[in-house]
Amino acid sequence: MLCPACVSHGLPQAAKLHRTFAEHDVAVIGLHTVFEHHAVMGAEALQAFIHEYRLPFPIGIDQADETGPLPVTMSQWGLRGTPSVVLLDRQGRARLHRFGVVDDLVLGAAIGQLLAESPAVAASVLPDRVGTGKARPACDGEGCVSQ
Amino acid sequence: MLCPACVSHGLPQAAKLHRTFAEHDVAVIGLHTVFEHHAVMGAEALQAFIHEYRLPFPIGIDQADETGPLPVTMSQWGLRGTPSVVLLDRQGRARLHRFGVVDDLVLGAAIGQLLAESPAVAASVLPDRVGTGKARPACDGEGCVSQ
Amino acid sequence: MLCPACVSHGLPQAAKLHRTFAEHDVAVIGLHTVFEHHAVMGAEALQAFIHEYRLPFPIGIDQADETGPLPVTMSQWGLRGTPSVVLLDRQGRARLHRFGVVDDLVLGAAIGQLLAESPAVAASVLPDRVGTGKARPACDGEGCVSQ
Amino acid sequence: MLCPACVSHGLPQAAKLHRTFAEHDVAVIGLHTVFEHHAVMGAEALQAFIHEYRLPFPIGIDQADETGPLPVTMSQWGLRGTPSVVLLDRQGRARLHRFGVVDDLVLGAAIGQLLAESPAVAASVLPDRVGTGKARPACDGEGCVSQ
Repeated sequence: MLCPACVSHGLPQAAKLHRTFAEHDVAVIGLHTVFEHHAVMGAEALQAFIHEYRLPFPIGIDQADETGPLPVTMSQWGLRGTPSVVLLDRQGRARLHRFGVVDDLVLGAAIGQLLAESPAVAASVLPDRVGTGKARPACDGEGCVSQ
Repeated sequence: MLCPACVSHGLPQAAKLHRTFAEHDVAVIGLHTVFEHHAVMGAEALQAFIHEYRLPFPIGIDQADETGPLPVTMSQWGLRGTPSVVLLDRQGRARLHRFGVVDDLVLGAAIGQLLAESPAVAASVLPDRVGTGKARPACDGEGCVSQ
Repeated sequence: MLCPACVSHGLPQAAKLHRTFAEHDVAVIGLHTVFEHHAVMGAEALQAFIHEYRLPFPIGIDQADETGPLPVTMSQWGLRGTPSVVLLDRQGRARLHRFGVVDDLVLGAAIGQLLAESPAVAASVLPDRVGTGKARPACDGEGCVSQ
Repeated sequence: MLCPACVSHGLPQAAKLHRTFAEHDVAVIGLHTVFEHHAVMGAEALQAFIHEYRLPFPIGIDQADETGPLPVTMSQWGLRGTPSVVLLDRQGRARLHRFGVVDDLVLGAAIGQLLAESPAVAASVLPDRVGTGKARPACDGEGCVSQ
């Protein structure tokens, strides 16, 4: 919300992830981690922000920690600040964990690698994007021949 | 060269691919497919263009076809125009084949899927990007617990 | 604050105005006009927003109107929403009044026209930008000749 | 043509100038100044470039100089390279002369100042952009009052 790089990069990227991939392949969940400006970053402020920015994916509110400024999940996951990206695989393990701006190409490659781990599911992910190549030219060490 | 979407999108994307991935994982090769403006798109013009745009990857020149306006490889591969992206897997098969602007997120995901097909090789691709998760919190249906 | 076009366009434009022109030529003043989400757009929220976005110009808070949702100045000036731009000349008259995104080129031209109305002052505005032309070629209907 | 900053900034800016201002207020004229890569930057190459980039304003070709690499006008005007912007006033005098990328806000302000020098003409330039203020609130040292 009050994080410029989230607003200009992280949230648009999350919204694009949400548009690009099917929900059962990549589920996008936001996490509202308040570690400063607590008084003006409450649930009502978040609700207005989500409304004005038309954010289409669910966003959870990280539970405040009574013993310190960092909320519980942020602290437990070792998130260093915002924006942060964590990719969880189908077993719920964190497989990518990055603080700062992550390029779409890099994030996409990491997602593609995780999707490939469940080929039975992922086979339907990008049907018209990663084709079978059957109507494509056959390529070998000598070059490519049209069929 | 004389393709606005190549200059504004395709070539910067190719250069970013070249910077982002190791050569033995993703080899970027340009293809100069001249199907119009032949007189001003020759090898010398391409050389000057590559120099001024500091293109860091090899670019081949598609062989002209004496019997028509489309050069040989463009015709054999069924490339509809420029920019076009073709992803070849390690066996040389065309696995993604797209005409027009392809978003980095989509292209990255396709590359990630292909990289995952050679896990022994790909394991070294994004070592600090797709981690083992061993130092990460364990997540199950109940939530995430720091370890 | 909770206006996406303000955050992505209006405020960066205002900050650029502030950087580009001398204070005595173009004074940039923000106006925080709250007409919805009142509960989460108060002075403290604005203060945090200004801090995080490093806004370098003064920002006033439009006085709430007890009789309606629009604050006083927004209502009196007929501002239709955010972002809005109002250019005042040196006599305090509103000379440009636009709702929505205004292109830099158009806004710049309007400012240039207003600056030209006070030539004695404006002469010092863009000394190295609008030169005297004395070292420049003389141009007539025949072309330009170096001097 | 083979100047990346021209393609990404200078030419789109020139096209925007052409769209934004009436022809009798701001006449946009391109100048094709070839000082290197002469063999591949001839008239035919320029023609193809103009066609593919849909450039809507006239572009002249700077006359080659038999005695050196710089073409005649580039040399006479002291243009240091590309992109360069020269603003001529109605008397044909060069009033702004810049090498490199010029921000829209700065260029707009310079144009606005020049337009203001011919008020009888310029009065019709931005009729709905720089209004008379007649329907606007009157502002004095006390603030603004709706009328």
